[in-house]
Amino acid sequence: MLLVMNKHATDEQIDSVIARIEEQGYTARPIPGGERVSIGILYNKGPVDGSLFLGMPGVKEAIPVTRPYKLVSREFKPEATIIRIGDIEVGSKHMIIIAGPCAVESETQALTIAKQVQKSGADMFRGGAFKPRTSPYSFQGLGKEGLDILVKVRETTGMPIVTEALDLENFDLVEECADVIQIGTRSMQNFSLLRRAGASKKPILLKRGMAATIEEWLMAAEYILAEGNPQVILCERGVRTFVNHSRNTLDLSAVPVVKNESHLPIIIDPSHAAGRRDQVIPLSRAAVAVEAHGLMVEVHNEPEKALSDGAQSLYPEQFAVLCKQVRSIYNDLLANGQD
Amino acid sequence: MLLVMNKHATDEQIDSVIARIEEQGYTARPIPGGERVSIGILYNKGPVDGSLFLGMPGVKEAIPVTRPYKLVSREFKPEATIIRIGDIEVGSKHMIIIAGPCAVESETQALTIAKQVQKSGADMFRGGAFKPRTSPYSFQGLGKEGLDILVKVRETTGMPIVTEALDLENFDLVEECADVIQIGTRSMQNFSLLRRAGASKKPILLKRGMAATIEEWLMAAEYILAEGNPQVILCERGVRTFVNHSRNTLDLSAVPVVKNESHLPIIIDPSHAAGRRDQVIPLSRAAVAVEAHGLMVEVHNEPEKALSDGAQSLYPEQFAVLCKQVRSIYNDLLANGQD
Amino acid sequence: MLLVMNKHATDEQIDSVIARIEEQGYTARPIPGGERVSIGILYNKGPVDGSLFLGMPGVKEAIPVTRPYKLVSREFKPEATIIRIGDIEVGSKHMIIIAGPCAVESETQALTIAKQVQKSGADMFRGGAFKPRTSPYSFQGLGKEGLDILVKVRETTGMPIVTEALDLENFDLVEECADVIQIGTRSMQNFSLLRRAGASKKPILLKRGMAATIEEWLMAAEYILAEGNPQVILCERGVRTFVNHSRNTLDLSAVPVVKNESHLPIIIDPSHAAGRRDQVIPLSRAAVAVEAHGLMVEVHNEPEKALSDGAQSLYPEQFAVLCKQVRSIYNDLLANGQD
Amino acid sequence: MLLVMNKHATDEQIDSVIARIEEQGYTARPIPGGERVSIGILYNKGPVDGSLFLGMPGVKEAIPVTRPYKLVSREFKPEATIIRIGDIEVGSKHMIIIAGPCAVESETQALTIAKQVQKSGADMFRGGAFKPRTSPYSFQGLGKEGLDILVKVRETTGMPIVTEALDLENFDLVEECADVIQIGTRSMQNFSLLRRAGASKKPILLKRGMAATIEEWLMAAEYILAEGNPQVILCERGVRTFVNHSRNTLDLSAVPVVKNESHLPIIIDPSHAAGRRDQVIPLSRAAVAVEAHGLMVEVHNEPEKALSDGAQSLYPEQFAVLCKQVRSIYNDLLANGQD
Repeated sequence: MLLVMNKHATDEQIDSVIARIEEQGYTARPIPGGERVSIGILYNKGPVDGSLFLGMPGVKEAIPVTRPYKLVSREFKPEATIIRIGDIEVGSKHMIIIAGPCAVESETQALTIAKQVQKSGADMFRGGAFKPRTSPYSFQGLGKEGLDILVKVRETTGMPIVTEALDLENFDLVEECADVIQIGTRSMQNFSLLRRAGASKKPILLKRGMAATIEEWLMAAEYILAEGNPQVILCERGVRTFVNHSRNTLDLSAVPVVKNESHLPIIIDPSHAAGRRDQVIPLSRAAVAVEAHGLMVEVHNEPEKALSDGAQSLYPEQFAVLCKQVRSIYNDLLANGQD
Repeated sequence: MLLVMNKHATDEQIDSVIARIEEQGYTARPIPGGERVSIGILYNKGPVDGSLFLGMPGVKEAIPVTRPYKLVSREFKPEATIIRIGDIEVGSKHMIIIAGPCAVESETQALTIAKQVQKSGADMFRGGAFKPRTSPYSFQGLGKEGLDILVKVRETTGMPIVTEALDLENFDLVEECADVIQIGTRSMQNFSLLRRAGASKKPILLKRGMAATIEEWLMAAEYILAEGNPQVILCERGVRTFVNHSRNTLDLSAVPVVKNESHLPIIIDPSHAAGRRDQVIPLSRAAVAVEAHGLMVEVHNEPEKALSDGAQSLYPEQFAVLCKQVRSIYNDLLANGQD
Repeated sequence: MLLVMNKHATDEQIDSVIARIEEQGYTARPIPGGERVSIGILYNKGPVDGSLFLGMPGVKEAIPVTRPYKLVSREFKPEATIIRIGDIEVGSKHMIIIAGPCAVESETQALTIAKQVQKSGADMFRGGAFKPRTSPYSFQGLGKEGLDILVKVRETTGMPIVTEALDLENFDLVEECADVIQIGTRSMQNFSLLRRAGASKKPILLKRGMAATIEEWLMAAEYILAEGNPQVILCERGVRTFVNHSRNTLDLSAVPVVKNESHLPIIIDPSHAAGRRDQVIPLSRAAVAVEAHGLMVEVHNEPEKALSDGAQSLYPEQFAVLCKQVRSIYNDLLANGQD
Repeated sequence: MLLVMNKHATDEQIDSVIARIEEQGYTARPIPGGERVSIGILYNKGPVDGSLFLGMPGVKEAIPVTRPYKLVSREFKPEATIIRIGDIEVGSKHMIIIAGPCAVESETQALTIAKQVQKSGADMFRGGAFKPRTSPYSFQGLGKEGLDILVKVRETTGMPIVTEALDLENFDLVEECADVIQIGTRSMQNFSLLRRAGASKKPILLKRGMAATIEEWLMAAEYILAEGNPQVILCERGVRTFVNHSRNTLDLSAVPVVKNESHLPIIIDPSHAAGRRDQVIPLSRAAVAVEAHGLMVEVHNEPEKALSDGAQSLYPEQFAVLCKQVRSIYNDLLANGQD
């Protein structure tokens, strides 16, 4: 951390800041400049809380220099984390595709879609049993019954299951059924839930919050790793901006940044970013081109009758096209030796 | 809801949309225009889910016309909700001021600050026992011990206590101690927590999510009311934007909008919006001038030693100035007959 | 346009609104609903200004139904616009690559870079002679001398030149030299400049404003077309959001949306979006995958000595890699029959 | 500027960076930390361009420490700038109110509104003769005829005139007529226009760009001061965010920040921020409470017939209420000794 002092900061103010730095067990190094003094904070283990100093007289700014995350950082663990789910490896040379409906609506619906997406090349099946809904009056998911259907989908197709855990109350139930437990956008900073996920033996799919910086997102993952679960898959799903032609704005530069900062795998959810079916295939191709480790896509056999998110769900035929196109780009990238 | 069809939508597509509207039990009214047909959806009780139609062939846009919230809306309940906490009325003619430290750190700290803010005119005391922190390595609050200290503050000063409930696990504990239970920014769409809050008999202070629209915020309140608790105080605390000279951007136009749309009281937290002490007093004056029903402000007797959010905490002397200034503006508004 | 009335709007208020609609020469069609009346405005030629009605008593909302743009819209001209610059076609089956330094610094610099990028497969050369700079103290470009150097680059390499016109004062000079005239991000709503560009016979590269909606961007293009110049290439270059790991957030969903709404070609500038070299290649691949018609990329032979934007400029060797990768993806897309 | 090196940066990389710093005539000061080296750049006159270093091998980040602006900064000129327009002082103890229609539509309209707002206490009259409009098909202002009407308003009422200059072409005309020349939001980074404004002897009202940081805004003002015109009034008018209940989000914390960073006066335009009449009065009160030096408000005698921005224009009776309320709050602030 670098503390920048006011131009007219007094020697006394500078001395107080130095004293306070040393009280914390850090080393203070004043750096006189032409116009003002800055003070470096050195030899801190872990991040320094800027607000400890920002309030002191004479201090103009506290500029963080080191990153606050540790276990998730590539500086801490240089080699990429590969997460194994049955025979599937996430974060390795295979680009994974997770597909399925927004919500599990019935056994017929789930099985129909599962077979269709599997045929097109999906690796895993997604479907919500517990749904976070903006309105208390909207369909909230089938709950336990939905989980049972998901188990049946796995038994029938062999595909691993990704489904969301919304709260501590139902975490155990979800954990028992799911192969990968999703922590949704709205829960990214539900710290109790993150700690519970950290105590699980199952891989966690951690979606980025709608207005989260990458630093906040990695710190959410840090909660999970700090509790002992190293299996975190990050999922970018669009951020909230002034843009109104898509539901959210897909932040694809997050992929190279996350891959540089962290060893964790990162996948993309184009469906929630777009909010409209006609943007999903182009954004999926872009996600592969930017070298995400995978995709999670919403597919519905009858999107116009879907109980939630119908407008963004692909028809199974469209999903088949998507798979073909993205696998082709991915093979092209591999052949050209990227990553 | 208004469905706008593509310019070249076929009669068959229009008929399918009409059929689907009527399947849902609504009335469809086609509106031919010069260039394209639109179809109004009428006689729906409650909001219509646009995505039911947005995916159908020929449909260009689904434009919501009615609001999705009901119990929180002023159209449903025209008179303002007034919430009583002991002798204090929130939403009535008295502008309430809630003050205290970000986190309860010790009995001495809490009692010292409580006496200071009470002397300056605070109505209620705030202090976190369970703290949501971006980093797992930051101070997470004193937990149960913090609650005990808060109870002692109430016993000593008579001030009602506002403190946050982070999760279902500790909700009962918090509910027992608090006079007002805070649902924090990061929990605004923690729907299980909202439902639990709806089952409580205590008033709920519901902070706006960092990137929430007013509609989403009011829908979060709707969850609480729908479970039977009508005592919700809304709290605007800044939204996330590209602006970087304050931690968040205080959205003061939310106050007239919320007061127009809803009967619930709304207060302002300038401390978290600003993130820096020197903006807190001006923003507090602005909050009163825009006719919020109250303020929630962070105050610390030694902000430079605070375990969290020191940079935005006022010194007690500054808080005294704040109270004097905002009470004066408020009286001026009353004298001029507003609201 | 649909006018939504308040729940308790009086018949008199409704009649006034209808009268005002008809005064404008439009047709009013009241649509009674269960709770409130809406009034459709029909048979308007061109967009209706909602603020004509939004201020009237009893009017709650004015919801635009038709788009405000005409000449740029695909509904007006269904076939794609192809722009010819010498032998090059923009908007057709060839993906164009424009490359060069942020600013022309010297003849040696420009020629060196031009030869390098041409060798790697660039179609056109870009370089600023007049530079818009945030600071009055930064290098403002070589001006007329820079244009002369650009002409020499064209004479030497045969590559067409893209360079920015900043104001009316220097437009003639730029027009004389350039093959494509760029209107920069900060000038997207410089309406005098747009009109002047509309009077030119040269193709215009119109960058999206940093906080412009697609509608505003297409309206800026409409200014150019309305003055008689149909040759507009749109260029997405990132929008301003809360995200801070890239300079701006590249909005790739703009590509399918623009291609759906408009017949104009659209290219991507990944360099200004990223602001950092290490994101430029991944974002370029993504831009091609989303089927933009081309790329504009900053390249510098000695980025660490560049007079502007060095941090985002690729080394010539990196640009060679970029060309190879994006051409490969593009060919893959063509082979799979997209677009 | 502080350059943060990668954890594993080599000595050679560090030496290259130091060499490059010294080539620029600055002083380099390496600061070894526990994990990585940082290098301070000292004794630079004026801001350092981070991109000079950000591209070099081993450099992770370039963190600006000093501000890029000089002439506009309070460190450069500690005392507040007061701008005199006839008898009126902007930036002094009197809070100024500028009012009038969005556009001058006719002599009758302008004179009617001018007399009404003067009676309520407006200090200056505003009205557009040249209007920046998103659509080429919207009313673009009366041009020269509008300026003549504004001159007549001044002659009749004695009120100074504020009107916008859109481009170099019409600047002379506007300059001749106006008492204060407005540079609009969309022109904030029209650098040629800023330079021309800097050559004027008339005060300039510089609106903040819709997505401009305060630093960019002050740099725009720096262009004007650098050309020799010290008379700049800054005007905050809302920034573009995800929020959709107001047209823009009024950023009131800009007021204390600008007053701290700069000696220039700052006023608020609540009308363009709100975009809706019913938010204008509350936001005006907030603007005064936050201690802006003044307000600029749109007023129209027949807003429902206005040729532009009718929805946000106050009725004259509402403006009278606004003046009364804000003057009262302002007097209250003065009596309490602020500022």
